[in-house]
Amino acid sequence: MNTTTTTISPEPLWRRATAEFLGTALLVAVVVGSGIAAQNLSPHLGGLELLENSIATATALTVLILLFQNLSGAHFNPVVTLADRALGGGHMARDVAAYLVAQLSGGVMGAVLANLMFDTPTRLSTTHRVTDGHLLGEVVATAGLILVIFALTRSGRSGLVAPAVGGYIGAAYWFTSSTSFANPAVTIGRIFTDTFAGITPSSTPRYLAAQFLGAALGAGLVALLFPLRKAPK
Amino acid sequence: MNTTTTTISPEPLWRRATAEFLGTALLVAVVVGSGIAAQNLSPHLGGLELLENSIATATALTVLILLFQNLSGAHFNPVVTLADRALGGGHMARDVAAYLVAQLSGGVMGAVLANLMFDTPTRLSTTHRVTDGHLLGEVVATAGLILVIFALTRSGRSGLVAPAVGGYIGAAYWFTSSTSFANPAVTIGRIFTDTFAGITPSSTPRYLAAQFLGAALGAGLVALLFPLRKAPK
Amino acid sequence: MNTTTTTISPEPLWRRATAEFLGTALLVAVVVGSGIAAQNLSPHLGGLELLENSIATATALTVLILLFQNLSGAHFNPVVTLADRALGGGHMARDVAAYLVAQLSGGVMGAVLANLMFDTPTRLSTTHRVTDGHLLGEVVATAGLILVIFALTRSGRSGLVAPAVGGYIGAAYWFTSSTSFANPAVTIGRIFTDTFAGITPSSTPRYLAAQFLGAALGAGLVALLFPLRKAPK
Amino acid sequence: MNTTTTTISPEPLWRRATAEFLGTALLVAVVVGSGIAAQNLSPHLGGLELLENSIATATALTVLILLFQNLSGAHFNPVVTLADRALGGGHMARDVAAYLVAQLSGGVMGAVLANLMFDTPTRLSTTHRVTDGHLLGEVVATAGLILVIFALTRSGRSGLVAPAVGGYIGAAYWFTSSTSFANPAVTIGRIFTDTFAGITPSSTPRYLAAQFLGAALGAGLVALLFPLRKAPK
Repeated sequence: MNTTTTTISPEPLWRRATAEFLGTALLVAVVVGSGIAAQNLSPHLGGLELLENSIATATALTVLILLFQNLSGAHFNPVVTLADRALGGGHMARDVAAYLVAQLSGGVMGAVLANLMFDTPTRLSTTHRVTDGHLLGEVVATAGLILVIFALTRSGRSGLVAPAVGGYIGAAYWFTSSTSFANPAVTIGRIFTDTFAGITPSSTPRYLAAQFLGAALGAGLVALLFPLRKAPK
Repeated sequence: MNTTTTTISPEPLWRRATAEFLGTALLVAVVVGSGIAAQNLSPHLGGLELLENSIATATALTVLILLFQNLSGAHFNPVVTLADRALGGGHMARDVAAYLVAQLSGGVMGAVLANLMFDTPTRLSTTHRVTDGHLLGEVVATAGLILVIFALTRSGRSGLVAPAVGGYIGAAYWFTSSTSFANPAVTIGRIFTDTFAGITPSSTPRYLAAQFLGAALGAGLVALLFPLRKAPK
Repeated sequence: MNTTTTTISPEPLWRRATAEFLGTALLVAVVVGSGIAAQNLSPHLGGLELLENSIATATALTVLILLFQNLSGAHFNPVVTLADRALGGGHMARDVAAYLVAQLSGGVMGAVLANLMFDTPTRLSTTHRVTDGHLLGEVVATAGLILVIFALTRSGRSGLVAPAVGGYIGAAYWFTSSTSFANPAVTIGRIFTDTFAGITPSSTPRYLAAQFLGAALGAGLVALLFPLRKAPK
Repeated sequence: MNTTTTTISPEPLWRRATAEFLGTALLVAVVVGSGIAAQNLSPHLGGLELLENSIATATALTVLILLFQNLSGAHFNPVVTLADRALGGGHMARDVAAYLVAQLSGGVMGAVLANLMFDTPTRLSTTHRVTDGHLLGEVVATAGLILVIFALTRSGRSGLVAPAVGGYIGAAYWFTSSTSFANPAVTIGRIFTDTFAGITPSSTPRYLAAQFLGAALGAGLVALLFPLRKAPK
């Protein structure tokens, strides 16, 4: 039974990296694509747009994790890959590098794919998103994400990671003021669409900084509350 | 434990074909019926209509797969039946033919049933749906559907196919521009209602072509990423 | 492992009947109460009202079945109790009678409780609901309900009955034109509230007739598609 | 397998109390934060606001219980901790005291965190919420919550507590007139935000009284319907 962490998959790296690329691309395609659909179909109803966007994202993220969890670990997120390594996940540096490249390129491809499906030009986003509250929101969102993933994994319940992460992100769209990007690859992908889910390049560095800070905080909570134990003999 | 693929059910063909007929009919009745209800109850709110339609479809599809998975494999979709055979599912040509007939006739019956329940005449749809983006959407939607079904089945998790496929289609209503028909039997059924979920006959051939292309792409990804392995002795 | 059918619970009848009373009362309280809340909070938005009503009902029904399934079988519905007996569930006539009394009185109590919580007088409903399409809707809704419950039970998956029935009813609110009463005890309870979920007494007999017809059709499909098999020795 | 009741976790008290603090804080942050987002994004659409708020709360509560269930029991609620002790859960008085302190302080912190994320000042709420119907709603909501938790735990299905409690609370937002606070720590936390989810201090004592009454009623139903049995040898 492969898990999101601590297990080195027997699959060759090219297959795992392909899964990370495809998974991240489809995740961003869902975030951006359902955002465009919501914007087209529910103009001037911001809450309904976000409801449509968040339900589609939460559901698709759950399915994507189910799809690739046994193959690549279904990280789709650089801070998850890095936290996995920091918490003792056993990936080699070469694997980490391949995962990050796959995730970042997948994120950009996903935005382009969504733009194409909706006959929308690929353009840099003009949506400014930085406020103090939003940055705090990203810290909280990312810390919570890391806590959910590794608490479940370390307590032997990796089979619950898919619905828990999907549900968590769906709720975090609402309870964090930033609508919970919580993922550097998704954040960078979302630069490349000037639609509902976009983020302008100038907002991105502070979002990324908040995400790394949140991931570190989350990993600290995991170490504190869910310490690794020696396996019983 | 029967699965969506690779297992030949011990049930007689008439019973399996009946399950495919009923399942496809009910699926189309849900798609068309909930579309009519949404249209009646939420006029001029296109996003809310699609939200109502997509939640009802996702939930009902999950239940229908649970209902018939152990009996017929719960394909309800010609490209799933064909991909199953192409990927080594072991159905005989006679079974495949019976499944396709059951699915196509079920799809039409389902539309008629929905029209009857809503006191709506059965008429050919006048809704044109072809754009380049929509056709790309159908390719992506169908490829993803095939990938979800056979990735889970090949990794020994056929018990997750029902919620994963339901959730996937619910999300794909939003993230693909075409609202994800992804099923030739459902597409043909939807010709026979001039309501929210209808599709005009002239749009249908290109939708079907996109679905077959997507199914081939999805089957290729399955073969690449989830190769069949020899069972351990 | 108790199931919805074919198992006689070791619990005393008074405890099982109390569970049927409480479960049916809470189910009707949810249907009526969430209908009043929806009506108060989303006036003039009929689709949004039904979405709120259907999500609350589907979720609560799932939880109520989980709650009482191991105790009484969690029927909450006279046609389920009768179909259970007809399909060989092994309940004695005395048990059936006690269940029906508990369900019908629970249904009425639930409507009164919802009225009280919302400071609404208990009055007979004035909502006419009979059309040919609606009656066909009730036949389809009830047949499907019986099929879902007993197909899962007969194939050894009673643990899936709770989410499947909840999801099925939530979808049936939308895909059947009648919004899927599918339950004589709930139908009779809903007479006693002149709010969103009410049904006027004169519409009730034809709704009940359609439900009994649907239940018979559903039981026939169960017998045809999911025949009882001898247990392997 | 730890459960919500009757099991004393092997974890040290500081770790369990931290989990109760964090879980309650995040729960209130979700309730308050998603309420603010709903209010900002869907003004003048009270039903849509509550739908957004209830979906986010139900989903996040499910995830939070999954997260901490094996560590602290995931009570996040003084009446659950007290009912657990009254029903024989085996916690010592010192543990109960630590849990209550953690829950109450967590509740307040969660409201402050949500205010900060949304750049909203922390102020006492001015929302009056007491009516006879609302107090009856709190009694019903809390009784049902206790019944769900301990019925599942006593019947050996503690793995279902997380989705059942999340789903129950999501539905209870709608079917109880009070929108189901059902938790003294959450109620007290919600005093500290003058936004959608707030409750004015003068409404609080009667809400708390109704919750304790409901919890006692729920515990009585648990004792009546789900008596503890001697374990088979």
